[in-house]
Amino acid sequence: MAQEIERKFLVDLEKLQLPEQGLTICQGYIPTADKTAVRVRIMGNKAFLTLKGENRGAVRTEFEYEIPTDDARQMLAELCKGPVVDKIRYLITHKAHLWELDIFSGDNQGLVVAEVELDNEDEQLDLPMWITDEVTHDPRYFNSNLLSHPFKNW
Amino acid sequence: MAQEIERKFLVDLEKLQLPEQGLTICQGYIPTADKTAVRVRIMGNKAFLTLKGENRGAVRTEFEYEIPTDDARQMLAELCKGPVVDKIRYLITHKAHLWELDIFSGDNQGLVVAEVELDNEDEQLDLPMWITDEVTHDPRYFNSNLLSHPFKNW
Repeated sequence: MAQEIERKFLVDLEKLQLPEQGLTICQGYIPTADKTAVRVRIMGNKAFLTLKGENRGAVRTEFEYEIPTDDARQMLAELCKGPVVDKIRYLITHKAHLWELDIFSGDNQGLVVAEVELDNEDEQLDLPMWITDEVTHDPRYFNSNLLSHPFKNW
Repeated sequence: MAQEIERKFLVDLEKLQLPEQGLTICQGYIPTADKTAVRVRIMGNKAFLTLKGENRGAVRTEFEYEIPTDDARQMLAELCKGPVVDKIRYLITHKAHLWELDIFSGDNQGLVVAEVELDNEDEQLDLPMWITDEVTHDPRYFNSNLLSHPFKNW
């Protein structure tokens, strides 16, 4: 298990040269009755099952396990309800930090979000010039909400 | 992944000599919004995360992964709501089949259930003489329901 401390930002793609290689991500959520998220994700040729506790600010308890890709495919088809989030992820290093830049497709087409993981909540962060607004605390951008209320309906 | 085909029965403990060794099981469920069960289980010194699809008769899609015991303890404390099911499991071989006999404690004290896993739904099953009624299709005995409506409230 780990505590996940993440900050999330919007991106101006015109100010950024994308890396050549992106990773296709296909993910869905098992519908839960509270704030716990149970996520099934296929990323490239690997798959992961992830449990995340409720957000407390930028901090969240997270458990992640690699699982067989065939299991993940079946979970997405049988256990995850509603549409599946599809996006392409690019990894970009800026100063001391690794940024994950996600370009969404499907119902979230047009949405571009960059996330960075921190060691602690007060860590100093150098923002790249292609970052615009911070949306860490905006629930519309929680991945689990992008399924029920996708970007196209905003 | 596997398809799980299980039949579940009540037990007359007076007709049975329990094995000397039982396995202590402590388990809880992440609250889900539909019939999918997400179970966290500590069994002896091992722990497992299990996803089960909706029951279709005695058949159920199941995915099970071993996880670190420390992860499971934290999940039970932080992510699983409500009481945790505690029981002692005894393994008993009868004819060609392995029976799992669960003696519940806590809010389900007094409940004793025996389960047997089958290769297919129509498989011939020799019932031990300590078996009484079959409860495979009785939702009160689903483990996930034993949490919300424990035996002591029946």
